[in-house]
Amino acid sequence: MRVMVALGGNALLRRGEAMTAENQRRNVRIAAQALAPIGRAHQLIIAHGNGPQVGLLALQGDAYKSVETYPLDVLGAETEGMIGYMIEQELGNILPFEQPFATILSMVEVDPKDPAFANPTKPIGPVYTKEEADRVAAEKGWRMAPDGGGYRRVVASPLPRRLFQMRPIRWLLDKGCIVICAGGGGIPTMYRDDGKLYGVEAVIDKDRASALVARELLVDLFIMATDTDAVYVDWGTPKAKAISRISPDAILALEFAAGSMRPKVEAAAEFAQKTGKIAAIGALSDLSKIAEGKAGTMVTDAADKIEYYS
Amino acid sequence: MRVMVALGGNALLRRGEAMTAENQRRNVRIAAQALAPIGRAHQLIIAHGNGPQVGLLALQGDAYKSVETYPLDVLGAETEGMIGYMIEQELGNILPFEQPFATILSMVEVDPKDPAFANPTKPIGPVYTKEEADRVAAEKGWRMAPDGGGYRRVVASPLPRRLFQMRPIRWLLDKGCIVICAGGGGIPTMYRDDGKLYGVEAVIDKDRASALVARELLVDLFIMATDTDAVYVDWGTPKAKAISRISPDAILALEFAAGSMRPKVEAAAEFAQKTGKIAAIGALSDLSKIAEGKAGTMVTDAADKIEYYS
Repeated sequence: MRVMVALGGNALLRRGEAMTAENQRRNVRIAAQALAPIGRAHQLIIAHGNGPQVGLLALQGDAYKSVETYPLDVLGAETEGMIGYMIEQELGNILPFEQPFATILSMVEVDPKDPAFANPTKPIGPVYTKEEADRVAAEKGWRMAPDGGGYRRVVASPLPRRLFQMRPIRWLLDKGCIVICAGGGGIPTMYRDDGKLYGVEAVIDKDRASALVARELLVDLFIMATDTDAVYVDWGTPKAKAISRISPDAILALEFAAGSMRPKVEAAAEFAQKTGKIAAIGALSDLSKIAEGKAGTMVTDAADKIEYYS
Repeated sequence: MRVMVALGGNALLRRGEAMTAENQRRNVRIAAQALAPIGRAHQLIIAHGNGPQVGLLALQGDAYKSVETYPLDVLGAETEGMIGYMIEQELGNILPFEQPFATILSMVEVDPKDPAFANPTKPIGPVYTKEEADRVAAEKGWRMAPDGGGYRRVVASPLPRRLFQMRPIRWLLDKGCIVICAGGGGIPTMYRDDGKLYGVEAVIDKDRASALVARELLVDLFIMATDTDAVYVDWGTPKAKAISRISPDAILALEFAAGSMRPKVEAAAEFAQKTGKIAAIGALSDLSKIAEGKAGTMVTDAADKIEYYS
């Protein structure tokens, strides 16, 4: 079957861990161990986040004063190269030499009229004092908001409309390649009035972009790998229960505390609804079991009631 | 016909120009104008250098003290993303929307026994004082050498042996894609005693790596686009003459002052000898004329004497 796995950016650089190349490499190696059995048994497409990596590039760019920090679309392109390289190399070291790989630079179109642009919410780069923040805002036209004990730049997170490189991705899958694409949700771009495509200072949700690609590729299984082993009801209470199978409508009706689970749940539900295929949310370390239907939360039209792990 | 164009890193960030994203973007736009007619008329593969771009990433990494600068293989991967993105976007803005593109992350194998490792010569990153250089050398095990009025790290430039992503590149060309690959000469990697592939702190000559790819793809024309319009005899003297056609043996017999022309000449001669096809060296702005055989220096087995532009 055809399987797409979306890796969280934090699967590659863990929260609180120093953002060194060594740490990132070690985490990619762990992810590669989890991905390898899927790569052996199935057609595999890998997407990944890039939050911590873009953050580091923004901090490094800010620290070097002679050249203005590069815009977010370019930083996103850099992280697609960096992370794609590490995944391709580490997974290539496990799978047979004959297995072809391709990391495809991925650009995504967003709508200039997306309401997210009126209400930027994603914090990026260094923490400034109030005075610095006011100066930077005036100088660069950035939107700033309180975060991390000071002020940070905030950017929009518009919806992905299409990924431009779908045809090469499809052609390579058909040839048996493991394809790494849609890194960081894809590089955000938009058409302006002159009919030309420009980069945009924004970030695209990685799960939504991955769901879009999974849908277009009509994958049989779309897995969002994260740090929790399933979606829970009553999370953080003694009644907490891990969901094994649930329908799109039922999971959309659940309430989640703010955080990263809501976008995953929406991406999973939309994928399952539109394709009739299975979306799963679970732990990176459980990937093989998720592919066998024995771990993680499966979102599928075929579920007529909510089932739980006992 | 099938045409490969290798763009110099300085075609994208010119010597002496501030290394801003805007300047780079503007230069890529100029390069895209030159590439577009080739992309319309022929199968096109684009390679590019990354010297100034890796240099900037090394300076930014050095300026941000909280995290050790990432190793050169990872910085190379970042530049493949950044430059591939800009080329793909700008060329895509000129060519018909239907034209498919793919930027392929490219890893290149080098030989651990390559003599270049015993004699590293390529300066990278910031200029240090003697004291700083001694400290950094002791701390990181770097080789340092006098450069830029102080001391800089020097790394090896080993020969490229193979590019791992040749199959995807070929498959995509067969489908009509314009393929961007071998950026910065490819990410340097090597097999160690454990049989696994590792990144290497080295740089690969972009012209040699491009020639390797051009040879494997058996392109009809391999163009190295640079800032001079041809290869000259008696360069810098009143007798200077621009060569229009020359055989591999004849061009290898010419003397060149130290600099970037020698590796291009060797890459061109080797390509022409091994394939019987044409290699050309000329100006980026003359690309279309070079493809028509009306500009640049053509290196070809078919040349039985040296011909000059009048």
